[in-house]
Amino acid sequence: MRQTQGVRKIYVIGIGAGDPDHLTLQAAKAIGRTNVFFLLDKGETKQSLIDLRERIIRAYSHPHKRIVEGRDPDRDRTPADYTGTIADWRTRRSQVIEDLISQHLKDDETGSFLVWGDPSLYDSTIAILEEILDRGETTFAYEVIPGISSVSALAAKHRVGLNRVGQPFQITTGRRLAEGWPEGVDDVVVMLDAQQAFTKYPDADIFWGAYVGTEDELLASGRIADVGDEIVRTRSEARDRHGWIMDTYLLRRPAE
Amino acid sequence: MRQTQGVRKIYVIGIGAGDPDHLTLQAAKAIGRTNVFFLLDKGETKQSLIDLRERIIRAYSHPHKRIVEGRDPDRDRTPADYTGTIADWRTRRSQVIEDLISQHLKDDETGSFLVWGDPSLYDSTIAILEEILDRGETTFAYEVIPGISSVSALAAKHRVGLNRVGQPFQITTGRRLAEGWPEGVDDVVVMLDAQQAFTKYPDADIFWGAYVGTEDELLASGRIADVGDEIVRTRSEARDRHGWIMDTYLLRRPAE
Ligand SMILES: C[S@@+](CC[C@H](N)C(=O)[O-])C[C@H]1O[C@@H](n2cnc3c(N)ncnc32)[C@H](O)[C@@H]1O
Ligand SMILES: C[S@@+](CC[C@H](N)C(=O)[O-])C[C@H]1O[C@@H](n2cnc3c(N)ncnc32)[C@H](O)[C@@H]1O
Repeated sequence: MRQTQGVRKIYVIGIGAGDPDHLTLQAAKAIGRTNVFFLLDKGETKQSLIDLRERIIRAYSHPHKRIVEGRDPDRDRTPADYTGTIADWRTRRSQVIEDLISQHLKDDETGSFLVWGDPSLYDSTIAILEEILDRGETTFAYEVIPGISSVSALAAKHRVGLNRVGQPFQITTGRRLAEGWPEGVDDVVVMLDAQQAFTKYPDADIFWGAYVGTEDELLASGRIADVGDEIVRTRSEARDRHGWIMDTYLLRRPAE
Repeated sequence: MRQTQGVRKIYVIGIGAGDPDHLTLQAAKAIGRTNVFFLLDKGETKQSLIDLRERIIRAYSHPHKRIVEGRDPDRDRTPADYTGTIADWRTRRSQVIEDLISQHLKDDETGSFLVWGDPSLYDSTIAILEEILDRGETTFAYEVIPGISSVSALAAKHRVGLNRVGQPFQITTGRRLAEGWPEGVDDVVVMLDAQQAFTKYPDADIFWGAYVGTEDELLASGRIADVGDEIVRTRSEARDRHGWIMDTYLLRRPAE
């Protein structure tokens, strides 16, 4: 049965990739209009991510907001069938989120999801809300607010353009890069790389960054033949120290 | 002769792609610390771009800032040799900018360039500053502040992800897309398209936007076979009305 009710509104808010000052005025205003924040605990100890979210809520939300925390369903981190596993996890996750919305967001209220970086880049929040709306039981209006992605943040820190003049570039995952250099491009941005796929390309230049925008930021650049080993070592030490790592890099090979 | 002097500082500030509320807190703070704004008149009547820049300066700069305007060198808009022409234009432009900096930015002062969207995406400001530093006559420190790109803004308005789960995507130009669908990707973001190259791909879905984030924003989406003609018509009417157009789109073809 389709519920008929006052309009519930949801914001999907990009909060930037680590630096609290990456927040846009649009995001700060939306946070100020939010009645209920939906926070999902990823079941991991990315404490600095949780800290950033809390700091932002504290700074820009209004005093009577409510914070609702949900428990993310568990997820196989190294699945054989990546796309299928993500789709299944997404459905379970969408059920958790649907419950949060229908239980905690009242008619005419506004709820917000704070999304790391930019919601359009390797993030499932939009797809999850669409899945909920498709099921047709819980209704709401929603709006997406763009954020500074880790890719823009990385490029800014290295003071480098993502493209070369008039040239295309690709954004891809470590998993894909491990299968081979992408066709048709000399410039590649790599996210979600748990395997240091860049080590396969000694002749390329790399612009690498971990925890970009946070106090723990690490940056390195140069020819992979020269700096690759050092990045592998730095990365592994940092991951051990923090218990997790988020890194992104731009690879640039000589134009053909 | 290399000048020895106090440190001059330059900010390259991404101001977002049209909506004044795309400005980040980091950008607003940098604008507040700026002594001299360098504005380049593109020799075109993109009045709403000029308006946005002025509005942002008015809102966030401090009362004693100075504004210095330079005249962009002319540029062949439809060159046969695109890359070569851009490189030549960039050099002439870097000379104009070098003069502005050396004449107007005093020791220990901070100057800013306000860049449309994100400075890492199809923008020449960083390359121009590097060219000036390479010549070695004018010295300064500089920092890049990321901004909301037209690509993030477009995706947010269409509430769509740029990538599909675990998949790569490419960002390219209209000129490139006209040569053929890029290899290795089913999702393509197209910028700088003066020729409506999307009309070649009737089976793809398009998420199109012009003047995204501004009051003149236009959005359209659907299968190109269904909506392509309408976009071509809307685009051409809007360009006639405004005298210029900036549009970007995401193309998505069925996964292979
Ligand atoms: C699930 S994706 C989310 C991306 C996010 N929506 C964005 O716009 O940046 C997570 C990946 O983003 C990248 N990432 C996110 N934050 C980062 C940061 N502060 N520094 C470096 N990489 C980061 C890493 O590649 C990480 O594996
Ligand atoms: C020289 S590039 C600069 C891109 C800019 N640095 C960015 O991050 O969006 C100009 C191209 O950006 C795109 N663009 C910029 N602003 C836009 C807007 N408000 N709406 C749609 N497209 C825009 C168009 O494709 C245009 O041809």
